[in-house]
Amino acid sequence: MEEFKRSMRIRNPLVRECLGELLGTFVLLLFGCSGAAQLKTNNATKGEYLSANLSFSVGVMSAMYICMGISGAHLNPAVTLSFCSLGRVPWVKLVPYSLCQVLGAYLASGLVFMVYYDAIMIYSGGNLTVYGPNETASIFATYPMENLSLSSSFLDQVVGTAMLLLCILPLDDKKNSPAPKALLPPIVATVVLGISMSMSSNCGAAINPARDLGPRLLTLTAGWGTEVFTCYNYWFWVPLTAPLLGGLVGAGMYLVLIAWHLPDLPAEPPRERTDTIEVWKKPMTTEKEELELKTAIC
Amino acid sequence: MEEFKRSMRIRNPLVRECLGELLGTFVLLLFGCSGAAQLKTNNATKGEYLSANLSFSVGVMSAMYICMGISGAHLNPAVTLSFCSLGRVPWVKLVPYSLCQVLGAYLASGLVFMVYYDAIMIYSGGNLTVYGPNETASIFATYPMENLSLSSSFLDQVVGTAMLLLCILPLDDKKNSPAPKALLPPIVATVVLGISMSMSSNCGAAINPARDLGPRLLTLTAGWGTEVFTCYNYWFWVPLTAPLLGGLVGAGMYLVLIAWHLPDLPAEPPRERTDTIEVWKKPMTTEKEELELKTAIC
Amino acid sequence: MEEFKRSMRIRNPLVRECLGELLGTFVLLLFGCSGAAQLKTNNATKGEYLSANLSFSVGVMSAMYICMGISGAHLNPAVTLSFCSLGRVPWVKLVPYSLCQVLGAYLASGLVFMVYYDAIMIYSGGNLTVYGPNETASIFATYPMENLSLSSSFLDQVVGTAMLLLCILPLDDKKNSPAPKALLPPIVATVVLGISMSMSSNCGAAINPARDLGPRLLTLTAGWGTEVFTCYNYWFWVPLTAPLLGGLVGAGMYLVLIAWHLPDLPAEPPRERTDTIEVWKKPMTTEKEELELKTAIC
Amino acid sequence: MEEFKRSMRIRNPLVRECLGELLGTFVLLLFGCSGAAQLKTNNATKGEYLSANLSFSVGVMSAMYICMGISGAHLNPAVTLSFCSLGRVPWVKLVPYSLCQVLGAYLASGLVFMVYYDAIMIYSGGNLTVYGPNETASIFATYPMENLSLSSSFLDQVVGTAMLLLCILPLDDKKNSPAPKALLPPIVATVVLGISMSMSSNCGAAINPARDLGPRLLTLTAGWGTEVFTCYNYWFWVPLTAPLLGGLVGAGMYLVLIAWHLPDLPAEPPRERTDTIEVWKKPMTTEKEELELKTAIC
Repeated sequence: MEEFKRSMRIRNPLVRECLGELLGTFVLLLFGCSGAAQLKTNNATKGEYLSANLSFSVGVMSAMYICMGISGAHLNPAVTLSFCSLGRVPWVKLVPYSLCQVLGAYLASGLVFMVYYDAIMIYSGGNLTVYGPNETASIFATYPMENLSLSSSFLDQVVGTAMLLLCILPLDDKKNSPAPKALLPPIVATVVLGISMSMSSNCGAAINPARDLGPRLLTLTAGWGTEVFTCYNYWFWVPLTAPLLGGLVGAGMYLVLIAWHLPDLPAEPPRERTDTIEVWKKPMTTEKEELELKTAIC
Repeated sequence: MEEFKRSMRIRNPLVRECLGELLGTFVLLLFGCSGAAQLKTNNATKGEYLSANLSFSVGVMSAMYICMGISGAHLNPAVTLSFCSLGRVPWVKLVPYSLCQVLGAYLASGLVFMVYYDAIMIYSGGNLTVYGPNETASIFATYPMENLSLSSSFLDQVVGTAMLLLCILPLDDKKNSPAPKALLPPIVATVVLGISMSMSSNCGAAINPARDLGPRLLTLTAGWGTEVFTCYNYWFWVPLTAPLLGGLVGAGMYLVLIAWHLPDLPAEPPRERTDTIEVWKKPMTTEKEELELKTAIC
Repeated sequence: MEEFKRSMRIRNPLVRECLGELLGTFVLLLFGCSGAAQLKTNNATKGEYLSANLSFSVGVMSAMYICMGISGAHLNPAVTLSFCSLGRVPWVKLVPYSLCQVLGAYLASGLVFMVYYDAIMIYSGGNLTVYGPNETASIFATYPMENLSLSSSFLDQVVGTAMLLLCILPLDDKKNSPAPKALLPPIVATVVLGISMSMSSNCGAAINPARDLGPRLLTLTAGWGTEVFTCYNYWFWVPLTAPLLGGLVGAGMYLVLIAWHLPDLPAEPPRERTDTIEVWKKPMTTEKEELELKTAIC
Repeated sequence: MEEFKRSMRIRNPLVRECLGELLGTFVLLLFGCSGAAQLKTNNATKGEYLSANLSFSVGVMSAMYICMGISGAHLNPAVTLSFCSLGRVPWVKLVPYSLCQVLGAYLASGLVFMVYYDAIMIYSGGNLTVYGPNETASIFATYPMENLSLSSSFLDQVVGTAMLLLCILPLDDKKNSPAPKALLPPIVATVVLGISMSMSSNCGAAINPARDLGPRLLTLTAGWGTEVFTCYNYWFWVPLTAPLLGGLVGAGMYLVLIAWHLPDLPAEPPRERTDTIEVWKKPMTTEKEELELKTAIC
């Protein structure tokens, strides 16, 4: 058995990390979309709007414990892009991470569709639509409210994602007052809960291109048709692009307004005890593996 | 007194652990079923659906603090089975643990029935039924929603329990980024809350054969009659079997997709300080006790 | 100033501890009763039933941080009685602690009455009653629901308080798997939240004689009249006595089913580092002060 | 880049701290006001009253992680005033901190107005008012309920802010039983949540002059007109002054009833390990910087 396990071990670190992001985003959306399905298909009798927000938040926590030790648990191309810009993550990882995040989200929403198939069919009368009182598309992807201007929805997604990055960057900044490393998952989950409760009114608080695109592709292939992309005048591009910009804005704000002005830490004593693993800054890739990684890709 | 205490001490470790599981599952169901009773008998005026989910979740946390140091706080035959498969717990414990979990759940639901006897009688008009607007059976065991196909409900329970195992296994995996040992109970409770909020719509999120069978036996003996087993075409076997399969699926996914690929930890220094007790992997049974245990059973 | 502070310092440890219990119970009820007042006087438009439960729970957390380092933060005669029985707290403290807890609860409900005076008068039409649709007595003390038998309500209070003691005793039991000392307040608060959400349906989940008697005395003196004691056939004695019994039952269950069977801890090395203060077992009273205390009382 | 960063670094500690308070209060109000906007403009269909309370609470947590390591994360002139009175913070910081808190709150409410512009216009029919069923001013600043006497609302704000200070001072008092430093943000956020759930009924639980004045100035300049100041008989002065008094009352109560009587800690060993940063008592200003600061101001 040990022999078999060893033979199965993935040695390419990027593949290992991508698998981590895939499974993490899968779990995130499994909680998130099924929470939305439970709310929608029961007309809020088995849970409230807050329950669905909380469900997404528990998904963030669980996903982070699953893959934080492997890939850093970005779970979101906007986070990966911001971390690349900050120099925390090599740029070469941006595309593979993002693709795996979208794939994980797609697979999770597919599973949610299977689990809630009967409930969705009963609720919608078998008619899978994007508009109308019995629409079910919003269980999966996000859609804007009626009469929302494009600029408002774009701003909404920029602001929501900027809040995310601005609030999670201090959490592991040793020069500031960081949170305990082992409790980052529930604390980040709480930040995401806060954004869901305060910024989901206009257009559903995607703040994550993968969280939106993966489920949207699922609805495209599962019976809702091309309307999921064409509706609201091809609105789908907003949650794909605005979060990327928002992440950069939030990270930039933290950098320029806070991080640059924090005094340097005193030099550390030579043999310090290290209780916690540096999860975000250094995912489990040694320098040697980084080299292998670059050669593997190029 | 000290003398008396010592004379009362249970020396067989399996008995001690079984007692732990029994009391733990008793507390879990005491919170869970009474939360459901408060919601149901007051037509959701003294709490909401979310309150009942939270109540179960607090039961998980409290039960884990009660018996985590003794038996590892499985509280669920699906968890025990998965841990046996992973080699964390000897197979010999599977049946006694499971029986005690069912017994604890039975006793707790009996006590909840006594505490809520007046309220249940007023709400139901004295007619204890499984179907209809004044049904009260769902306070105790789980039942599927109308028109749910058998395959959907089976899949629902497999997925829900797989989520449970997939999300709790990383929490004490030292090679990953584990949670603080002393805070496992609230974190596991949060995972269970997430599953209740997102996967209880179809058939009540048992995800635990003992949590379902114990209260179902209580309703059988307390006046609801055999319908609790025969209803929905003998549906009761689903929450008994699907969670067992789901647990194995979830544990397997974590193993194959994550755990096998985590780099080995560096060898530990000889005299490490250990602040926290390894709760899940090594319940308080020494190797010598394990031997005694096996001979005691055979 | 330093001179003045030193001259003001209370040197009798029992007085200091009683002051701690008084202020702690004051804060507990300040959160609890005002949360109930906000719910009641707004017909649940500014908060829900869950908000009022949460409000009480935040009161528990805050009160414990205020006086845990002084008196152990019992905040409840049922807890003090159980701790006396377990030998954790000297019996001589039972009565003074309990009186201060009642006094703290009385003062807090008086302040809540002042803050919510206008709202209560508008809601009740100026008629302070115990019965009827505009009753406001239940903002302060607890009352049983209609048609609840005496034995049910007594059992309810015994079970609720037994749950409390059964769930908090493992939290600082070093032989079990204890919670972090510095996080006892939020964890105990979560247990209390669980009890409020699952056991407040029958008769309001007092589970604490001081929490009930203090506010009841306030309503007696503030205009609700003697009906607060005579109503429901002099029911007020139930939340005064049943919690005391329940606490002993819960503590006994933990002792007999769990604590007695936990293996002894290994002897500690001579110069251990101690990061956390032993808060419950040893409140800040040295042995010498204990002696002074006994002589001060006798 | 490093060169550029170093050239941009703010060397005056007061400016750095003020920037921290500004950004912190900005984030606090960004969560708080947008949560209120989501609740109001959707008639509580996308969240409940509790969600808006929680949203403010997540804002407190996030804001504290952002600036606790820089300025101590007061976020509230009432907190700064109380800390000045206690000698924790030099008096010279009171006015600049308070101005930055007001400015941060103003900017955040401006951004929330932009994000929710469409929603507010649809909800209000384009008529921005303080009174009436479609009023939207209460998204930003606080207003008293109808028929509330001035003395009640003043008392309400004194009591609410006193609760805040009374509950947060023990959290980092080493002589008492303090909370973990790195978890102060979620614990303080929970205290604020408790106050929102129990003390927001009368007049909205400002308990913070900056949280109220900043958004009120925004509404003045953004179209609600001078009524935001003149309404309810110029009531706006209450949340500006009563919290200042309340903070002093709460801090005084903790000092006189608890802190003065806590026994001194044993002298510390010479080379103690320090894991956590003393965040509140010593913001990142060395004595030398304090001197520079005073000379910079005078």
